[in-house]
Amino acid sequence: MQRILSNELPAYVGERVTVAGWVHRRRLLKAVAFLILRDAGGLAQIVVTEPEARDRLAALTEETVVEIVGTAVANDTAPTGVELHEPVVRVLGSPAVPPPFDLYRPTLTATLPTQLDHAPLALRHPRRSAALRISAAAAGGFRSALDRLGFVETHTPRIVASATESGANVFALDYFGRPAYLAQSPQFYKQLMVGVFERVYEVGPVFRAEPHDTVRHLAQYTSLDAELAFVADHRDVMAVLREALAGMLGAVADRAGAALDTLGPVALPEVPAQIPAVHFTEALRIAGAPPDEPDLAPAHERALGEWARREHGSGFLFVTGYPMAKRPFYTHPDPARPGYSNGFDLLFRGVELVTGGQRLHRHADYLAALAARGEPTGPYAGYLDAFAHGMPPHGGFAIGLERFVARLTGAANVREVTAFPRDLHRLTP
Amino acid sequence: MQRILSNELPAYVGERVTVAGWVHRRRLLKAVAFLILRDAGGLAQIVVTEPEARDRLAALTEETVVEIVGTAVANDTAPTGVELHEPVVRVLGSPAVPPPFDLYRPTLTATLPTQLDHAPLALRHPRRSAALRISAAAAGGFRSALDRLGFVETHTPRIVASATESGANVFALDYFGRPAYLAQSPQFYKQLMVGVFERVYEVGPVFRAEPHDTVRHLAQYTSLDAELAFVADHRDVMAVLREALAGMLGAVADRAGAALDTLGPVALPEVPAQIPAVHFTEALRIAGAPPDEPDLAPAHERALGEWARREHGSGFLFVTGYPMAKRPFYTHPDPARPGYSNGFDLLFRGVELVTGGQRLHRHADYLAALAARGEPTGPYAGYLDAFAHGMPPHGGFAIGLERFVARLTGAANVREVTAFPRDLHRLTP
Repeated sequence: MQRILSNELPAYVGERVTVAGWVHRRRLLKAVAFLILRDAGGLAQIVVTEPEARDRLAALTEETVVEIVGTAVANDTAPTGVELHEPVVRVLGSPAVPPPFDLYRPTLTATLPTQLDHAPLALRHPRRSAALRISAAAAGGFRSALDRLGFVETHTPRIVASATESGANVFALDYFGRPAYLAQSPQFYKQLMVGVFERVYEVGPVFRAEPHDTVRHLAQYTSLDAELAFVADHRDVMAVLREALAGMLGAVADRAGAALDTLGPVALPEVPAQIPAVHFTEALRIAGAPPDEPDLAPAHERALGEWARREHGSGFLFVTGYPMAKRPFYTHPDPARPGYSNGFDLLFRGVELVTGGQRLHRHADYLAALAARGEPTGPYAGYLDAFAHGMPPHGGFAIGLERFVARLTGAANVREVTAFPRDLHRLTP
Repeated sequence: MQRILSNELPAYVGERVTVAGWVHRRRLLKAVAFLILRDAGGLAQIVVTEPEARDRLAALTEETVVEIVGTAVANDTAPTGVELHEPVVRVLGSPAVPPPFDLYRPTLTATLPTQLDHAPLALRHPRRSAALRISAAAAGGFRSALDRLGFVETHTPRIVASATESGANVFALDYFGRPAYLAQSPQFYKQLMVGVFERVYEVGPVFRAEPHDTVRHLAQYTSLDAELAFVADHRDVMAVLREALAGMLGAVADRAGAALDTLGPVALPEVPAQIPAVHFTEALRIAGAPPDEPDLAPAHERALGEWARREHGSGFLFVTGYPMAKRPFYTHPDPARPGYSNGFDLLFRGVELVTGGQRLHRHADYLAALAARGEPTGPYAGYLDAFAHGMPPHGGFAIGLERFVARLTGAANVREVTAFPRDLHRLTP
């Protein structure tokens, strides 16, 4: 008999069906016993009345994997409105060692470090797996939105020859006896690929040797990168980012609705047709910061998030025109405003979620930018070469997937929405 | 005026339009000059008759990025059946340094090493970019097919604590002062995630410190991984692999038709509703190998590929039941045939493309398998823990994306279909 999932039960009332999954919970009452089965579709209630079956159920440990044949009977109080009667239970594999924390309680009571130590088990909890389903939907929505806009997916190197992009915080590697580094982002490669496809995106792991233990940094995270050519300036990039975000949230609504309910329910933010944008100088004023501050502190970002909510009813806010001094060397300056750039951040609920901007595209501008920072051109040779051979005006952005999901679901720590986080202290499981 | 792509020109005949892209080629004849423009849509022909405009065109180097306003005029001999007249050309950026090889010839005449040294330029050649478009479509098709089958996408660590999975050929890393390694596959993690979602897939980079310089190995490649629970045996895994392949080829047909034409045209193989399968012992007989061979050599695989084509009209062939001795410790044995496994390979046109199989799922079986190989359990602690806590029968497979595209397009070397390959000798660009 073909196995069905627990959420398919309503279509089989009155029939004998097969389900399979994990023993989520057992409740042994006087007259009756219940087995709650967990599978990819959710939870199913199995009713046991026959004494011998009840004895066998009493001996089953939580998390044991079982296959159950039973009769589907409507019951409004069961998880899907349908429960199974007259079950025949078969253990697949062997009885499970009971987990170190109860997976059947509404919320995991174990501390986050304990959950992370036992990640393969903790992730089985519906609230933990729900966050990862949302993450999967968001990544899919990002790709679909950019596919529709003519972007091409790329797969670029994670092992690079120079620790160039942000200087510090790189992991060093032995590459066949030569020094190499893990990529902190696909930045240079996505720019090079703009010379090939004009519009590219990449979804993949990036690596930062973050020496700080914070709730929003990981040593490996999933970066949603996009880059596009033939832009007039950074505003064309912001327009595509708006579409990507709308695609991500649309996919979460479409494909992870049950996961959103499990977590709250979580209400998804609207993405305004035009996300409000303020210039960096104006952002300082709104945040009450001194006008000569070179960057926004977290407290400023929070104040801006509140302002955007209050003044524009928006969870999203662009801050444009960051000072050149605080942006990477490849950032395009604002031609109309010396010292300021065509670089932007997108704040989501008062936290920086996306960094992006227009990039330099003339070879001579790159040489001048590196010279101004006192940097040699040697380590950038392969990158710079492309600009000598004709590159269009372009720009792009990068979204941190885990940070997006954490902010969306209200998770206090990005590790809650990461399957197997890597950080200063954690290299396993 | 909104820019259009060259392949959109037929809809604008008689109108004044803006195009932009790279100077692909110039042809200066006596009475007339032609500029061939390359953009994301393909090629467009611009006709220059006005003497001053002709002089300016003569001074433009190949690969310079330009914007052109012109009048769309039907002409059957032009690339899209439409060419632009009375052009006004504006250089975006600065004149390009001419490339070290001609990008406008039908095929790149530079050697592959030279192409790879100048990858950002070589990839602009329509044949090189076509292969990457096919690659993007194939990866998208893989995900779509598995999404339809209820799989959830995962993002798992690329930095791991033990060099366990295949022992040799791992890259070592300094992880905050501790030894760590780059993941050779997401094998362990996808199995752990089967305990969470039942069906998972992951598309991402994996790393092998391949000490051999061959045409089919890379130090980093893109692995298309899938794993599914509640299988009866490896045949359920093979059925899902068949759907994934059909999805990949369907997406290539739908989304990369022009790229297929550029490369040949390339004819896509049919995926049989039931891909033929032979047991390993039978495969040895067909290949004319001694019956005690423990594995298939490349020559055997080629012979099997020819056999499958001849006998079944299929480019694909499953070889099942590989000897346990040649498969990883987590491989499930064939219960009916001691010494043989429920592991399989899929050959595509006589080359191994996919490895997969049913895995062990009982904790005791893992302990016994490691003991039989004389391996300690310590390095596998986090992995084994999940099996103690209840894991369903499961299996999965991994497809090498670059190898798939190379075999599909007839590329002799996997580096021809990889944007920025990494190998024993190559760490840049």
